[in-house]
Amino acid sequence: MKSREVHLTAYPKGEPTPEHFKLGEADIPEPAEGEVRVVNKWLSVDPYMRGRMSGIRTYIDPFALGAPMEGGAVGQVESSNHEGFAPGDWVMSMNGWREAYVAPGQGLQKLDTTHIAPEDYLGIAGLTGMTAYVGLKRCIDLQAGESVWISAGAGAVGSAAIQFSKAMGAKVVATAGGQDKVEYCRSIGADSAVDYKSTDNLAKAVKQANEGGVDGYFENVGGTHWTAALEVLKPKGRIAACGMIQRYNDAGAQPLPDNLTNIVAKSLHIQGFIVSDHFDMLESFIGDLGAWMAAGKVTPRNTVKEGIENMPSAFMGLFSGENTGKMLVKL
Amino acid sequence: MKSREVHLTAYPKGEPTPEHFKLGEADIPEPAEGEVRVVNKWLSVDPYMRGRMSGIRTYIDPFALGAPMEGGAVGQVESSNHEGFAPGDWVMSMNGWREAYVAPGQGLQKLDTTHIAPEDYLGIAGLTGMTAYVGLKRCIDLQAGESVWISAGAGAVGSAAIQFSKAMGAKVVATAGGQDKVEYCRSIGADSAVDYKSTDNLAKAVKQANEGGVDGYFENVGGTHWTAALEVLKPKGRIAACGMIQRYNDAGAQPLPDNLTNIVAKSLHIQGFIVSDHFDMLESFIGDLGAWMAAGKVTPRNTVKEGIENMPSAFMGLFSGENTGKMLVKL
Repeated sequence: MKSREVHLTAYPKGEPTPEHFKLGEADIPEPAEGEVRVVNKWLSVDPYMRGRMSGIRTYIDPFALGAPMEGGAVGQVESSNHEGFAPGDWVMSMNGWREAYVAPGQGLQKLDTTHIAPEDYLGIAGLTGMTAYVGLKRCIDLQAGESVWISAGAGAVGSAAIQFSKAMGAKVVATAGGQDKVEYCRSIGADSAVDYKSTDNLAKAVKQANEGGVDGYFENVGGTHWTAALEVLKPKGRIAACGMIQRYNDAGAQPLPDNLTNIVAKSLHIQGFIVSDHFDMLESFIGDLGAWMAAGKVTPRNTVKEGIENMPSAFMGLFSGENTGKMLVKL
Repeated sequence: MKSREVHLTAYPKGEPTPEHFKLGEADIPEPAEGEVRVVNKWLSVDPYMRGRMSGIRTYIDPFALGAPMEGGAVGQVESSNHEGFAPGDWVMSMNGWREAYVAPGQGLQKLDTTHIAPEDYLGIAGLTGMTAYVGLKRCIDLQAGESVWISAGAGAVGSAAIQFSKAMGAKVVATAGGQDKVEYCRSIGADSAVDYKSTDNLAKAVKQANEGGVDGYFENVGGTHWTAALEVLKPKGRIAACGMIQRYNDAGAQPLPDNLTNIVAKSLHIQGFIVSDHFDMLESFIGDLGAWMAAGKVTPRNTVKEGIENMPSAFMGLFSGENTGKMLVKL
């Protein structure tokens, strides 16, 4: 079986361009003893992947050049040489950026698609949703009646965080880039939303949207958003530092105004986190998510592109803000 | 009884100068029913007082202009009209910046001077020591065998934090301004010490002093120190944000390089704190401090000036780095 796959050709310094990616093709053999052959149906693109394109080890190894990239993927077993898997079974793996693969069955997660669509295991019911959950529950420790600012509110994690915060009984102010996205944030439940591109005083705009400031801040953006958050947070405010997409493609550092004394004066709590350090919360996440979805409080939100050849543009689109909700590629 | 007292004449914008202070004099009446009259013997000057000179409410009200300033003070009861106090008793109050006062007995803390010198209740055995303790124990959660960077290591809180960290079994790298202070940090137990004034790459210097980085950072300085700390901390490193003296006198903001993605990539934990929110730790502090002092692991470290007229220069000296250990004024 032939499988097309995406290779990284070089480590980009700034924003990745189409030249950094190349479509290759591989032969996928029949599964050996204990293996299964899987045809991917849905592939994930995520901002964290930018870190693996830097050639520098952070919390995860960089992608190898000239080899298939990796990422979340949901597919169906095509042929199986492992007693635990039968053709047609849905499985999730990190063997993304490719159309098909053969792998030992034991590394694959079999999916129950009774209540959750296969692709949502890459989004709201997968690491994306879990990231929003960990940030709100453990880092911010958000309580009913409190207020929270969700940055990049129209994005994958942000749109989950808005819905989860509302389900938890909090008041939500969202920020996003552009009037369409602001409307989108409101449509999925944000009590108020601010277009950061149309204000030159983000802190003031967020404060106006939620009088008196906020108890929590979900950091997906960094840079000017971070600076504004230190102003907007109330005393004993908490920041979940999940990502800083504004900076992932910056080759040089943009200096920031130093308003760090707010951290001391307001006794702020800031917690950077990687979702994989918090898998002990998986059971509580699945329980809450199931209840929220059953009650109609949370709905999967995806932007879908089609075809393996569109993986690079889907990925690059994360940084130009093409997606609302989770960006997925359907094969 | 006459008492000289220091008034603030105006809210300074940048560094306070002698013109911002004025010596006044007040008549202190005989104590009424339930009151005591106290002659102060030791007065405290602390960096946090700069915040009360800004005219802006932070976590505490600003000083009133043309009235005696406030701060930690230790004195002896001169005459008492309260059954709980007798002449000669040592008491602590916030009625500092003055030679004497009359006040209800119920607001005063009577001091046991059997094992602790009266003035040390303003330093290592008071809020200064408690601040170091809360930062290390609760915010950094420092463990034996870990490494910690103490900034402003020759200062009041820093010199306590160095000694406490060593008593807790940690490895200490200290930073301070000038070779004398670096020597001082070593003399009180720091395993290594760096003069931040003689390096143009603080992060590299601290990393060299403690190979592989540090588990904790005690933030007393801010600005360039903060930036370096985000580089030097190991994954899951913790910052206790206690103060940022580098910024207290800045009228304008110095921009900082944006290296905040370290917070996410290394899952850093940052906790700003005000000691008064953590008085639940008082008992454990007193217990540990007593044991450490009895074992000779911790020694009070003070710099002493004399006379009420030298209060402004003692205070201003905190920002030019005149003190090692706790700055006190003896009356």
